[in-house]
Amino acid sequence: MIQRATLLCLSISLSIFAPCAAQSGDSRPAASNVRGAQYPRVYADLRVEFRIKAPEARKVQLQPGGDDNGLGKGPIDMARADDGTWSVTTPAAVPGFHYYWFLVDGVAMNDPASETYFGWGRQSSGVEVPDKGGDFYAAKDVPHGDVRVRWYYAKTTQAWRPAYVYTPADYDRDSRARYPVLYLQHGSGEDERGWSTQGRANFILDNLIAGGKAKPLIVVMDQGYATAPGAAPAATTQGRGSAQPSLFEKMVIDDLIPMIDATYRTLSDRDHRAMAGLSMGGGQTLQITLTHLDKFCWIGSFSSPLRAGLDLKTAYSGAFADAAAFNKKVHLLWLGAGTGEERMLKPALAMHDTLEQAGIKNVFYQSPGTAHEWQTWRRDLYEFVPLLFR
Amino acid sequence: MIQRATLLCLSISLSIFAPCAAQSGDSRPAASNVRGAQYPRVYADLRVEFRIKAPEARKVQLQPGGDDNGLGKGPIDMARADDGTWSVTTPAAVPGFHYYWFLVDGVAMNDPASETYFGWGRQSSGVEVPDKGGDFYAAKDVPHGDVRVRWYYAKTTQAWRPAYVYTPADYDRDSRARYPVLYLQHGSGEDERGWSTQGRANFILDNLIAGGKAKPLIVVMDQGYATAPGAAPAATTQGRGSAQPSLFEKMVIDDLIPMIDATYRTLSDRDHRAMAGLSMGGGQTLQITLTHLDKFCWIGSFSSPLRAGLDLKTAYSGAFADAAAFNKKVHLLWLGAGTGEERMLKPALAMHDTLEQAGIKNVFYQSPGTAHEWQTWRRDLYEFVPLLFR
Repeated sequence: MIQRATLLCLSISLSIFAPCAAQSGDSRPAASNVRGAQYPRVYADLRVEFRIKAPEARKVQLQPGGDDNGLGKGPIDMARADDGTWSVTTPAAVPGFHYYWFLVDGVAMNDPASETYFGWGRQSSGVEVPDKGGDFYAAKDVPHGDVRVRWYYAKTTQAWRPAYVYTPADYDRDSRARYPVLYLQHGSGEDERGWSTQGRANFILDNLIAGGKAKPLIVVMDQGYATAPGAAPAATTQGRGSAQPSLFEKMVIDDLIPMIDATYRTLSDRDHRAMAGLSMGGGQTLQITLTHLDKFCWIGSFSSPLRAGLDLKTAYSGAFADAAAFNKKVHLLWLGAGTGEERMLKPALAMHDTLEQAGIKNVFYQSPGTAHEWQTWRRDLYEFVPLLFR
Repeated sequence: MIQRATLLCLSISLSIFAPCAAQSGDSRPAASNVRGAQYPRVYADLRVEFRIKAPEARKVQLQPGGDDNGLGKGPIDMARADDGTWSVTTPAAVPGFHYYWFLVDGVAMNDPASETYFGWGRQSSGVEVPDKGGDFYAAKDVPHGDVRVRWYYAKTTQAWRPAYVYTPADYDRDSRARYPVLYLQHGSGEDERGWSTQGRANFILDNLIAGGKAKPLIVVMDQGYATAPGAAPAATTQGRGSAQPSLFEKMVIDDLIPMIDATYRTLSDRDHRAMAGLSMGGGQTLQITLTHLDKFCWIGSFSSPLRAGLDLKTAYSGAFADAAAFNKKVHLLWLGAGTGEERMLKPALAMHDTLEQAGIKNVFYQSPGTAHEWQTWRRDLYEFVPLLFR
């Protein structure tokens, strides 16, 4: 047993795990735990053990966020020990980031031992399960860019809002250099913080750029919601913009892009502007880019809720109607989904086939073994960015 | 009643409140709520109403964080309605930011309707109560700086860690300009995110700089903990560094300051380097600055847990032993505390008196009506920064 634990310690020392010293037997605290918290613990075989103290509760359950969560399908009953601690160990989990919470006598509550992440329209617990292939999103000894919180006033909403802006490591070294820009959107119920916390986008970009696999670029991560002046904001879970024109679209075109081009050293022509997004953000991306091809020519849709029966003559204001013209205008149309999310994979494959048959160039990527979760989207970003601005 | 609501709407339109449209009667959703959440609600007279649905619970209470919390002393019983919703309205609260959580049958859980903030060694709910004098920390139509998340490798801990770095609005406009630096630390159980979320430091600095009241500066907000390589990290609530030399002190001197001076356009001499902190961070500030006067000459202690019976001959390696030499060397020694936190105010006043009697120049500030909470420290920052680098 000791030998096994030692091997584990060696084999994952390059990963994003907590320090070796905190391990016990063949498990160790998850990297997503708050400082010093011993649970959740991840075992060498990727089972995850959760604990919560609730002496007076009659029933405590683990609730993974969503039906295709890599921790399993919930709610999962937890067992009570004599001291009032409830615990459960899941089967081997899918590698990556998983939202979860506890149901204590039916009330959803976060795990005080884990960091929280904005998802499901509120702050939710998350657990990081290591991936043997996860080196691409680890914090490594390479030059790091900054993730900047940039507050700006949007005329469209008449309100201040924060955008998260990644500037590459060399941005501050050469004050004359200008960079292409990727606008990168989160999913429904999430916000502008998602890509740099759950998504680890900055580490993915640092590693790609340091390895010469991607051109240095600026990445803008905004909040995919916009509220009309004077209106009450809708709860984020009701904020699904999908493919309908929306105030968010207007805000991106009229406020966000001009602010970014005025504030940072961008290359501001369409050849140097890309947009991508996950789930709701992918739907927003297709809507915004395909109806504004004067502004974008690199497009990525990650696990988007796509329309069934795409009519190439009329969809997206006829952007696909002329294949040759589209291929000339758009440098990259990239579609992705996980093999574990049939709901998103099937319509994406259907769109890919329809486009192929019409002679419209596009790239299709399947993330092996992952579902509608961040591990799919981390891989999407890692596959998508190297193709940009070539 | 309608007239009163209208007046309220006008009088606080410059504040950090949610939009007017969301108001109902004389209350409205707190600015700290997640998007679309109707509770907690703040009344015109600053009473705060909390709600949580827990049909199966036998007892639900509101727990303000700490004994001197401006929401009142907890736990405060909540009342159950027929639909299983529990609610309570506090007496008029002290303006500012207050940590809180619910106790559901004795289990501490966050409010799903509020943002969470790292405090008390974990993610905790917080509620923002508006202050008539709070204009100084509002997001206003002035040039805004960026708050940058900067990951760096500390040799002292042999680990990657994030520092939050505020760069002023004109930092990117003149690529030759260099800036003085303020190192600004959070309190025990908090982390590097505290000053820019709970503290609204970036808005305070934007407003001070735009108003010509402060010189443009860089502000570095790091995590006030350091773990020896290979050791298990202690939970943050056990991480009180206070005035003892610590690994954090070594990390600041050997890793943080050199990294900041190498990465940003700083003025790197002692005349242009300040440090301040709140509570535990104030103790760390006094320890680090007074024993490294070759590196700092502007010092701020906000609500620090100060030593009783300061011996001027021996304290801080004898930094105070020669009053004339100290006054020549240190350009500012600034002590602050709230009038509502006797535990911190009394020893700070005693230190102020002892220093005065010894002829050691120092500034003392009392925040009226606030206790060991962020409203005290927002005001401290607002009073302290204009005195720097003059």
